[in-house]
Amino acid sequence: MKNDIFATRREKLRRLVHKRGLDALLISQAANRFYLSGFELHDPQYNESAGSIVITADGNDWLATDLRYSETALRLWDKDRIFIYKNHTADQINTLLRRCGSRIGLEARGISLDFARNLAKTGSGLYLEAADGLVEHLRCIKDSAEVAALQQSFELNHKLLHWIEGQLEPGRSEREISWMIERYFREHGASELAFANIVAVGRNAAIPHAVPGQDTITNNCPVLIDVGCRVNNYCSDQTRTFWVGPTPTDDYQHALELTHKAQNFAIEKMHPGMPLAEVYALARSVFEQAGVATAFTHGLGHGVGLETHEAPSLSPIAQGVLTPGMVVTVEPGLYYPQWGGVRWEYTVLVEENGVKIL
Amino acid sequence: MKNDIFATRREKLRRLVHKRGLDALLISQAANRFYLSGFELHDPQYNESAGSIVITADGNDWLATDLRYSETALRLWDKDRIFIYKNHTADQINTLLRRCGSRIGLEARGISLDFARNLAKTGSGLYLEAADGLVEHLRCIKDSAEVAALQQSFELNHKLLHWIEGQLEPGRSEREISWMIERYFREHGASELAFANIVAVGRNAAIPHAVPGQDTITNNCPVLIDVGCRVNNYCSDQTRTFWVGPTPTDDYQHALELTHKAQNFAIEKMHPGMPLAEVYALARSVFEQAGVATAFTHGLGHGVGLETHEAPSLSPIAQGVLTPGMVVTVEPGLYYPQWGGVRWEYTVLVEENGVKIL
Repeated sequence: MKNDIFATRREKLRRLVHKRGLDALLISQAANRFYLSGFELHDPQYNESAGSIVITADGNDWLATDLRYSETALRLWDKDRIFIYKNHTADQINTLLRRCGSRIGLEARGISLDFARNLAKTGSGLYLEAADGLVEHLRCIKDSAEVAALQQSFELNHKLLHWIEGQLEPGRSEREISWMIERYFREHGASELAFANIVAVGRNAAIPHAVPGQDTITNNCPVLIDVGCRVNNYCSDQTRTFWVGPTPTDDYQHALELTHKAQNFAIEKMHPGMPLAEVYALARSVFEQAGVATAFTHGLGHGVGLETHEAPSLSPIAQGVLTPGMVVTVEPGLYYPQWGGVRWEYTVLVEENGVKIL
Repeated sequence: MKNDIFATRREKLRRLVHKRGLDALLISQAANRFYLSGFELHDPQYNESAGSIVITADGNDWLATDLRYSETALRLWDKDRIFIYKNHTADQINTLLRRCGSRIGLEARGISLDFARNLAKTGSGLYLEAADGLVEHLRCIKDSAEVAALQQSFELNHKLLHWIEGQLEPGRSEREISWMIERYFREHGASELAFANIVAVGRNAAIPHAVPGQDTITNNCPVLIDVGCRVNNYCSDQTRTFWVGPTPTDDYQHALELTHKAQNFAIEKMHPGMPLAEVYALARSVFEQAGVATAFTHGLGHGVGLETHEAPSLSPIAQGVLTPGMVVTVEPGLYYPQWGGVRWEYTVLVEENGVKIL
């Protein structure tokens, strides 16, 4: 049953491979590989591969991996279509690709320059070309099983955020809170964090990707929490900013109000067909009108699915339009190195008539 | 004080950059970046960068990053030498590199083919060349502060393995044990796992990189545990295989004895000057003599430091020799899909007269 999903996805991709006039497409990126096969969502390390999938125009796809993963491969894939490489991976993948045709697409964003050179160097009669984004294009639009998994992941994320607000006691360090969050996620059904927790106290809240450290919550400070868990393979991603203590500053209150306003303004207007760059522009326009746009230092959002950050992105240079089935974050923020910052992040599912907050 | 370590490392690297005749070297790999600057040990995602370091021949190094990390950069690096890029990163890095000279080294194993193309496309007068492994070469030899951090990490790893053996009760699942291990590490001083835990019960022990699942310990089965934690930024990595229950099978006992024999044989003979490939051959020779070498399906070991897997590797095609200051795993294993497998892993520090188990 589960295998059928993967086969269906491979057939959809095969049509795109045909359209591009390719004989085959080498899938190197871990999440793309998993999306098409169920084989290994993670690589052992960023510079080490657990394996590749070769999607062929003729329908005889391959799973290529090394001996460490051969047993896992056998549990998922037809034995006759598993290709085991040892050392000199690029050479051996080259041999495999030659069996699949001559015009081969590569994920140029998913392989290293070094691997690409070794693959080409040993080539005889292989025409290699960059063919990025084909799987990401499919992954942009979530099917119902994916939406169900995402909903589970966000449900747990909401529960966590509700719970953690009550735990932000003066004296607790960022690291302590971060570990409490991780424990909660893991002991309530998450397989892992979707990404490293961000727990930023006081001025650290001005750092959009702060690493939790020894700084402690005082009895009057902002705490920014940006966290995600993975449930049934799918990620969630949400941010809240809380004030701990009795007297939030005017600067904080003002930034919080503007952030909410920018977020609401974008979410209310979002609908299928709207250019992605326009969603960013909507939120930014609120900050511009208030004269604080320079404190909004990042994009408005990104897709969420098998990866925390995936297509599409809601940035000023984004191409494309909102489409039903897309799942994107909407996360405006304002950052002030002097005192900290505010970010608020919801993730929304694009539906026929607008968007729904997950 | 801590900053001095990074400056010293940059000066060592600068000599290598000079020797290669480069005007500058673009450092893209996260662990290399951190090793040279203390800036961000992790990237937010495998296909997303937190920033780069440019080591210049003239000594005016740069830290290049985006606005999300500017505050973090300011806490570590001279403000005038921080380069902030926005969109079109490759274009902007190209501009920065042109200010550093014309002959530029790249980490071809650390950048994507796509990034390399964009960097070259916009170039005018830049000669880009692959210059991999220079920082890895320095990182191979651990200094005393690194050895101290590694010792802390392995000390905790030993404690964990001692404790977990008593927790392997029939009925507990791989996932449950895996989470117990993670909690223990985190609640005893680790900042994170060094890599995803491997807890493999029964036949799953035949999968060298098994993902912990719902399979449970029975009252007579092997359990393979391969785990690592990160303490003070440094990784540890150890494997043990336990038999749970009263009657280990002859197959298991035999595999365990041979694995120990292969490991001891290699460790006793290891000394500075020995070719890395020979260390692998020593362990393998024990398996060959016993007629089981085909069940030993991976390399013998790898360096451990800021990354779990780093240079040097102990494989049949490894170049170079054992050198004092190297820290490498010695992890022979035998795998049998019918019933499971055995792996035993120690990590050793190469010293003047031999090796010391960490």
